[in-house]
Amino acid sequence: MIAEDSRLGTHLLIEGSGASSDVLDDPIRVRQALEATVKAGGLTLLRYELERFVPQGITAVGLLAESHLVIHTWPERGAFAADLFHCGELPRAAAEDLARVLATRLEAARWRHTLLDRMAPPPADEHASRATARPISTLP
Amino acid sequence: MIAEDSRLGTHLLIEGSGASSDVLDDPIRVRQALEATVKAGGLTLLRYELERFVPQGITAVGLLAESHLVIHTWPERGAFAADLFHCGELPRAAAEDLARVLATRLEAARWRHTLLDRMAPPPADEHASRATARPISTLP
Repeated sequence: MIAEDSRLGTHLLIEGSGASSDVLDDPIRVRQALEATVKAGGLTLLRYELERFVPQGITAVGLLAESHLVIHTWPERGAFAADLFHCGELPRAAAEDLARVLATRLEAARWRHTLLDRMAPPPADEHASRATARPISTLP
Repeated sequence: MIAEDSRLGTHLLIEGSGASSDVLDDPIRVRQALEATVKAGGLTLLRYELERFVPQGITAVGLLAESHLVIHTWPERGAFAADLFHCGELPRAAAEDLARVLATRLEAARWRHTLLDRMAPPPADEHASRATARPISTLP
């Protein structure tokens, strides 16, 4: 039912915990972690923006030629959530590698990633809505 | 197994098609669509960035007090993909409403949305990786 040309991109979701709170609240370390991820993925960074929150926490976004990379950090919880939207293909092994690069740069003890295909709704799907979903179950 | 305090936020994914290519390639209309979504959600826009691609296409990102809202458009395909990451709760009805606001502002004929909980990996999940996932099946 889904036409090949309805594919818009690949979306990599990453969550980490047990990370260094100092790193997660440091704009330079966060930027370095994103840059390392961009480099590992052979991506092109067009623009970079960072917002620091009070009393802590960072949102950073990189606009990419390939789409975007964004991260939110919760230093007080040692946690982060990141998203890489790639308008092309992102092979499963590459996605796993990028998640590892980002998480290890942030000194995370644990992380997990999810790979989603982002598809334009085909004509048959008029006003269709996907079910509300819980995250995919964790594999050991 | 997942502790309540491992919840990082709610992520709303929206894809649309059959949208106006003129609107999707117009920075003003795209910004207006995002602003309408921000307003409908009672969100706070801290910073806004837009990138136009050649020959067409837009990436726009709003850094929010609540996290972020980003959109990519493919005017030549009449399609877009958007993401709203909300660090708090985003009730199902509200999410559906925000998807509708964004899609109708972009004059999309079809859209669908997915709501994901973003959770920090709990300690038991050391280096766990979630399965690669296809989008949730579409409901008529």
